[in-house]
Amino acid sequence: MLFPRTLERLTRRLENLPGVGPKSAQRLALFLLRRPVEEIQEFAEELLTMRSTVGFCTLCGFLAEGPVCEICQSPGRRRDQICVVADVRDVVALERAGEYHGLYHVLHGLISPQDGVNPEKLRLNELIARASDGEVSEVIIATSPTVEGDTTALYAARMLKPTGVKVSRIAYGMPVGGDLDYADAATIASALEWRREM
Amino acid sequence: MLFPRTLERLTRRLENLPGVGPKSAQRLALFLLRRPVEEIQEFAEELLTMRSTVGFCTLCGFLAEGPVCEICQSPGRRRDQICVVADVRDVVALERAGEYHGLYHVLHGLISPQDGVNPEKLRLNELIARASDGEVSEVIIATSPTVEGDTTALYAARMLKPTGVKVSRIAYGMPVGGDLDYADAATIASALEWRREM
Repeated sequence: MLFPRTLERLTRRLENLPGVGPKSAQRLALFLLRRPVEEIQEFAEELLTMRSTVGFCTLCGFLAEGPVCEICQSPGRRRDQICVVADVRDVVALERAGEYHGLYHVLHGLISPQDGVNPEKLRLNELIARASDGEVSEVIIATSPTVEGDTTALYAARMLKPTGVKVSRIAYGMPVGGDLDYADAATIASALEWRREM
Repeated sequence: MLFPRTLERLTRRLENLPGVGPKSAQRLALFLLRRPVEEIQEFAEELLTMRSTVGFCTLCGFLAEGPVCEICQSPGRRRDQICVVADVRDVVALERAGEYHGLYHVLHGLISPQDGVNPEKLRLNELIARASDGEVSEVIIATSPTVEGDTTALYAARMLKPTGVKVSRIAYGMPVGGDLDYADAATIASALEWRREM
């Protein structure tokens, strides 16, 4: 390669980031090369600071700067509902909608034996423990309507049975404002399956 | 935002990178959060090392770890030809093809008055100086066949006139293996304009 050694090494590093191919890694490296030294120093410090200060909430598994996240600490949240999601980003999406006021439980994945993700790798035992604390009355499962999401939802529901807590799953159907004409077959199938008498 | 402050700050920083939108910045930040601390330290060090060791060749403007790049230093290159390109990446593309054995001159941009890029901002005076050194017999202009590329090519050719050096421009036409049926009108127009008697 024609790139100086240190630029080449950085380009390789950037290539390992998700969604960054060889071409964009090269573009990013050349962009960074032209930025002021102080800016690159700030970038490097922000990387290190973020990595050393941010972790996961020991209760719900969401992002936290200390042992417990802001949502779990908030006095304004209902403590009788737990919404189960696969990923940190699902919490962000639900919070953006602003319609849910309970607590969360982030599994950090979905059951997927072919990818080596067995139920023990997910935070399911922690979920059972939380659901059994006497305060919780409902667990709302919000995993995606895929094979992995369905499997995980069923598995979690079965594990939660002995706790006596109500277990529900969010609805999958036509998005509001969506057009039947443009919907895929799986969405239409879900919308029919989840239909409600009126 | 729900993200811890330091993660949010890093996400904003990543959003400023070319080709990275808010969604992918979030994805990158969450990816980096899960990487081992040592890996993040290596990344930060590579950023700083690259920025402090790599710069531009004082002769041709290509990437260099010292004052002069590897191409300009190479004893195997023809020193009577200079190929003029807009960007460092154009040098990489030409080198990849392996068909050119002379030296380069990187302008670091193209004339574009509406973007505030006047001829003085480009490395044109340096080009004239190099072309006048007695060793150079031909300057090959390889700027893109766009308004900016054409303007820059014409401007450079006019500036080079008094040096008496031969000035040429690479051909724009049908790509080899390309199908007329799929070519855009501008490419077909170029192919007709650059036609050669046979």
